[in-house]
Amino acid sequence: TEILSQPPDGDTFRILVTTDNHIGYLEDDEVRKDDSHNTFEEIMQYAKQYQVDFVLFGGDLFHDNKPSRATFFRTMQTLRRYTLGDEPVRFQVISDQSKNFPETGVVNFQDPNVNISLPIFGIHGNHDDPAGVGGYSCMDLLHSSKFVNYFGKATQIDDIKIFPVLLEKGSTKLALYGLGNIRDERLHRAFYSNKVSWIRPVCDRIKTEDWFNLAVLHQNRTKHSQHGKNFIGEGMLPQFLDMIVWGHEHECLIEPEESSTGRFFVTQPGSSIATSLSQGESVKKHVGILEIKGENYRLISVPLQTTRPFKIQTVVLREHLDQGDGADQKQVEEVLAHHVRAMIEDLEKERPPSEDEVFDAKSRMLPLIRLRVDYTGFDKINTSRFAHQFVGVVANPKICCSFSNK
Amino acid sequence: TEILSQPPDGDTFRILVTTDNHIGYLEDDEVRKDDSHNTFEEIMQYAKQYQVDFVLFGGDLFHDNKPSRATFFRTMQTLRRYTLGDEPVRFQVISDQSKNFPETGVVNFQDPNVNISLPIFGIHGNHDDPAGVGGYSCMDLLHSSKFVNYFGKATQIDDIKIFPVLLEKGSTKLALYGLGNIRDERLHRAFYSNKVSWIRPVCDRIKTEDWFNLAVLHQNRTKHSQHGKNFIGEGMLPQFLDMIVWGHEHECLIEPEESSTGRFFVTQPGSSIATSLSQGESVKKHVGILEIKGENYRLISVPLQTTRPFKIQTVVLREHLDQGDGADQKQVEEVLAHHVRAMIEDLEKERPPSEDEVFDAKSRMLPLIRLRVDYTGFDKINTSRFAHQFVGVVANPKICCSFSNK
Ligand SMILES: [Mn+2]
Ligand SMILES: [Mn+2]
Ligand SMILES: [Mn+2]
Ligand SMILES: [Mn+2]
Repeated sequence: TEILSQPPDGDTFRILVTTDNHIGYLEDDEVRKDDSHNTFEEIMQYAKQYQVDFVLFGGDLFHDNKPSRATFFRTMQTLRRYTLGDEPVRFQVISDQSKNFPETGVVNFQDPNVNISLPIFGIHGNHDDPAGVGGYSCMDLLHSSKFVNYFGKATQIDDIKIFPVLLEKGSTKLALYGLGNIRDERLHRAFYSNKVSWIRPVCDRIKTEDWFNLAVLHQNRTKHSQHGKNFIGEGMLPQFLDMIVWGHEHECLIEPEESSTGRFFVTQPGSSIATSLSQGESVKKHVGILEIKGENYRLISVPLQTTRPFKIQTVVLREHLDQGDGADQKQVEEVLAHHVRAMIEDLEKERPPSEDEVFDAKSRMLPLIRLRVDYTGFDKINTSRFAHQFVGVVANPKICCSFSNK
Repeated sequence: TEILSQPPDGDTFRILVTTDNHIGYLEDDEVRKDDSHNTFEEIMQYAKQYQVDFVLFGGDLFHDNKPSRATFFRTMQTLRRYTLGDEPVRFQVISDQSKNFPETGVVNFQDPNVNISLPIFGIHGNHDDPAGVGGYSCMDLLHSSKFVNYFGKATQIDDIKIFPVLLEKGSTKLALYGLGNIRDERLHRAFYSNKVSWIRPVCDRIKTEDWFNLAVLHQNRTKHSQHGKNFIGEGMLPQFLDMIVWGHEHECLIEPEESSTGRFFVTQPGSSIATSLSQGESVKKHVGILEIKGENYRLISVPLQTTRPFKIQTVVLREHLDQGDGADQKQVEEVLAHHVRAMIEDLEKERPPSEDEVFDAKSRMLPLIRLRVDYTGFDKINTSRFAHQFVGVVANPKICCSFSNK
């Protein structure tokens, strides 16, 4: 990230890409309640520190469709701190904003009554999608407050027209396409019946092929069932796109991957907080700093420091205890506790040497541990008694073991 | 209101006072769903038209503690249209704002990143009171968005300190006290155990007696039970106050009334929408334009044009039909229908002659009718059949009659 110490030049867009921040996740949990807020704040700090031109949200900003007032208030206060200020925005919007932002009509930094120094563009996810009378999302409320520019809300599911927000910074022309979450099956059907139009920019001054075409969407990327209609295949996306920021998938696969069709690249930032104790979520979390200049791009990934250390591992009990022995609960518990402690130690070893007090304090967060126990041939243990010894040691004592047998 | 055609002079505060707007009331009703929004917009128009220095909300801005997203969004959009702009605010806040606005720390028009031309100060009512984790109100969200200045939130019920917002405009010094709704019994108890402190301003420059002391509160004003602890008596309020804007009571009694203790005046603007079909709510609705200069004030009441015409009347069936006759349902229905039609006609006659098309269109709103039927000695009628003939004629056909017997 040293190359980010200088501001971007006058022809380069520098964009912070982040997704699935799930603000408000576990807000009632004694230990983890602040996690989503802390990491969101860390991300906004990077946006300022690295002097990005704008921030791009890939959906699921909020965990709940109706966030609690405390969560919503705190998010607004954080957004206010980072988005408002006197620093000028260094690019222009040249598209028809009434098409990009039908509810609000204008990009926040062109409102003469508000000083925006750090614009945010964002789509909704499935967690914060439009719902209820009038079909408003929390993102609409944030746009009305001028904290974000909410786009990519398809109002007619049988005729989805995606109008890009056209951005210009010096010689670089960026067409930003957004498509907020739509139930995969419906979107799949709409794609195959040609009900989805990605509108190409028409502009006297700028040739169609001179646009860098960036899209952000929030859908399943991988097949989650045999029927295969509950995900969006890369082949369904238009070939003129240059890059896709893929939201919804929580595993951090931020390094741009060439699509199977060979035309565009996909970056999948992943969630900024683990909302399940799965393998994918245990991958180190990052946000991306995407730079675009002309037809070229580079992506610098920035590891998040405030995410909770998380280790997941599997133990097969019969590999550690003889079944014939008539092993009692106590022996099983000892084996499991031994494993949990070893995992905690592993995380301690992975921890980088502390550089300063602040970092040190943060690095001392209680870890998330998930030990998957194959207890075939044994009895299940009393998990609440087992959990007790890890209170104050791990962040999730009650659910640090999961059990399965064959 | 002709005297309001000129802007106030440099020593006069001109304040629009309104309360109990109950935005979102009946948002699912086909006929009445827009009523609260329309009237709220009318009120904000008067604020601009009469060039007031600020607007004062007396609580129950929203009908629901958690307004629907559609209602909240629409309210934000309306507030944005009227509060933001380049016109300078013509008075100063000289109190410690961290005490006035503990959540947000600053009055909206001193935020350098937002252009406020029409400030709003407001308290919460019982409908939009702080609730849930952290104790936030919708008013907190509006303050965070910079649309209002929310004050008067007592955080410690056993030690209520009311710090006035101190406002200065030329030679006029205005101490604005706010106390958002607290359950009457609790507040009653707090008053009598001396747990409520109304903090007097301390200021080198300005003598204590030179302040005009204006308070806004949202409590029962009249005894609603025999026990008599469910209301706030005027004797419980400090005698240094000059004027009180009383929220929560929906009947419009806007002309300032001298308190029984003889020291201060009370104006009760009443709700801007009828939320019950009672006598009190049928009184013509107004907002007030309160002018304060030095120790003097005047209040000009402005009748609202967008409120639905509403007539309430009582009929005693036995005065119109002989019981001995064995009067059938049809006869009863005829008597009632006759009364309802007469009430509609009365409202038509009360309607001022139309001046222009816009007014005319608004004046053609379907009316609210409430006929209270004393049916002693008769059978109740089939109300849904009866209602049918008034669909499209009155705004509340299903509930235009209420029934009681002795
Ligand atoms: Mn997600
Ligand atoms: Mn999602
Ligand atoms: Mn009320
Ligand atoms: Mn009330």
